[in-house]
Amino acid sequence: TRSSVVWMRFASTSSASVAREEIRSQKEAAAAAPPPPSSKEVSTYWGIPTTKLVREDGTEWKWSCFRPWDTYKADVNIDLKKHHVPTTFLDKVAYWTVKSLRVPTDIFFQRRYGCRAMMLETVAAVPGMVGGMLLHLRSLRRFEHSGGWIRALLEEAENERMHLMTFMEVSKPRWYERALVILVQGVFFNAYFLGYLISPKFAHRVTGYLEEEAIHSYTEFLKDLEDGKIENAPAPAIAIDYWRLPANATLKDVVTVVRADEAHHRDVNHFASDIHYQGMELQKTPAPINYH
Amino acid sequence: TRSSVVWMRFASTSSASVAREEIRSQKEAAAAAPPPPSSKEVSTYWGIPTTKLVREDGTEWKWSCFRPWDTYKADVNIDLKKHHVPTTFLDKVAYWTVKSLRVPTDIFFQRRYGCRAMMLETVAAVPGMVGGMLLHLRSLRRFEHSGGWIRALLEEAENERMHLMTFMEVSKPRWYERALVILVQGVFFNAYFLGYLISPKFAHRVTGYLEEEAIHSYTEFLKDLEDGKIENAPAPAIAIDYWRLPANATLKDVVTVVRADEAHHRDVNHFASDIHYQGMELQKTPAPINYH
Ligand SMILES: [Fe+2]
Ligand SMILES: [Fe+2]
Ligand SMILES: [Fe+2]
Ligand SMILES: [Fe+2]
Repeated sequence: TRSSVVWMRFASTSSASVAREEIRSQKEAAAAAPPPPSSKEVSTYWGIPTTKLVREDGTEWKWSCFRPWDTYKADVNIDLKKHHVPTTFLDKVAYWTVKSLRVPTDIFFQRRYGCRAMMLETVAAVPGMVGGMLLHLRSLRRFEHSGGWIRALLEEAENERMHLMTFMEVSKPRWYERALVILVQGVFFNAYFLGYLISPKFAHRVTGYLEEEAIHSYTEFLKDLEDGKIENAPAPAIAIDYWRLPANATLKDVVTVVRADEAHHRDVNHFASDIHYQGMELQKTPAPINYH
Repeated sequence: TRSSVVWMRFASTSSASVAREEIRSQKEAAAAAPPPPSSKEVSTYWGIPTTKLVREDGTEWKWSCFRPWDTYKADVNIDLKKHHVPTTFLDKVAYWTVKSLRVPTDIFFQRRYGCRAMMLETVAAVPGMVGGMLLHLRSLRRFEHSGGWIRALLEEAENERMHLMTFMEVSKPRWYERALVILVQGVFFNAYFLGYLISPKFAHRVTGYLEEEAIHSYTEFLKDLEDGKIENAPAPAIAIDYWRLPANATLKDVVTVVRADEAHHRDVNHFASDIHYQGMELQKTPAPINYH
């Protein structure tokens, strides 16, 4: 049968102010004759190789929802305090929309931060997907380049989905939580979709503020982990692989890297909103690349 | 200012039946002090580095809509004749839907294949985006892994968008063509969205057949290029960089690699439909990786 193996080798060194990262990937595709179609597995007829991914240490890569080259070391030194002071009317509406959404959230979850994180990540993964999709459709309609923003926003959505996949391992959703997620997604997806159509400037600002709130809530989570109010359990295997954490990493390490991700999303979205505010076009301003 | 440079080196060798590809990427991020916010360029406040991408030969990477590591050498040896024979009722509906869409398309474009390619790519980039988005939302709602399918479908959408960016350089859209694209996108996006919600099995089959038609239409394009009925102009710069074509590549080479892409999309979509037909779940069958 047709199959291929992909090796990935990572070597990373870092010093005080310079971070060097080297990702080396070797891809080897051995193409043999396509297998004859069998009645049991018709799918092989399409000759799509079953790619085996291998880690740097030669062991098998066990995830199919993300690949070795999607992993990274989070930049945890990012400034967590940065804030966009709302000055325009639209900014104030964005700010107070997000602030008022925190009230029911705080009441519902209280200090159950693991559960809160899991539930909120199902919402956090929506804006990037909506923005990326709308920019994609716009690029097609207008015969315009994307400036890399489609990819950047879709990668944000994927990153948020990885947050969810991680917190799922920490906290299991109950049936009424599952029902709530369906309801909230139905409302939020459509609201954000419309919002982005009407004013991408406003939509990115809202996401920027949502990320600021996420940073705050992960900081509270960390406090409770440090105070022993929440057990500092070992990090889930998926988190260790995704953020290249040491094998003995704990939930605290996971929350720290997730919070760093949120700070990066905050920057990207406020930046996108600022571009619109400055009267520039998103697609003419190159999007952030590999900004984690 | 904070900036980083990314180098990419490519080395590729190929023999009769074995294709070896080595992609080596070195990333170096030099993080200096964040720049002070200026009134003119508030966006720099967010400290997002202006990443300079560099080619293997050291020259500047000029595209922001795709990055050096998104480029590839198309597998032009793919079987162009593969076809899914419709047997079930649903397959026949999918097949005849696509076949009947060809009638108005043929009448409208006739032998203007450059124009036809440009226009049809605005449609071709829709299914991958819709499928990827719906699977993303589903993964969030159900707290389920994606099996890599979200990424695979979004990458297909991006690949189709790159086809459009290429053919835009060959043929410029006229005002009524722009109007037609807006109309067709409005109808097709919603139709495919609904179709995918109701039956992903059917939706992927439709896309599979659309890709079969695309292969046919690019083969006709090639014939006219070979017969001199269409001028075999030099390949657009974007195509040379995206498919790693030689500097003296022509439109014929571009159409050949685009056609190979369509054959890969055909396989992926019929495969996805087959998975559904076999009663398996998409997210439990690993998605194709780097299948170009
Ligand atoms: Fe998140
Ligand atoms: Fe976030
Ligand atoms: Fe295409
Ligand atoms: Fe295609």
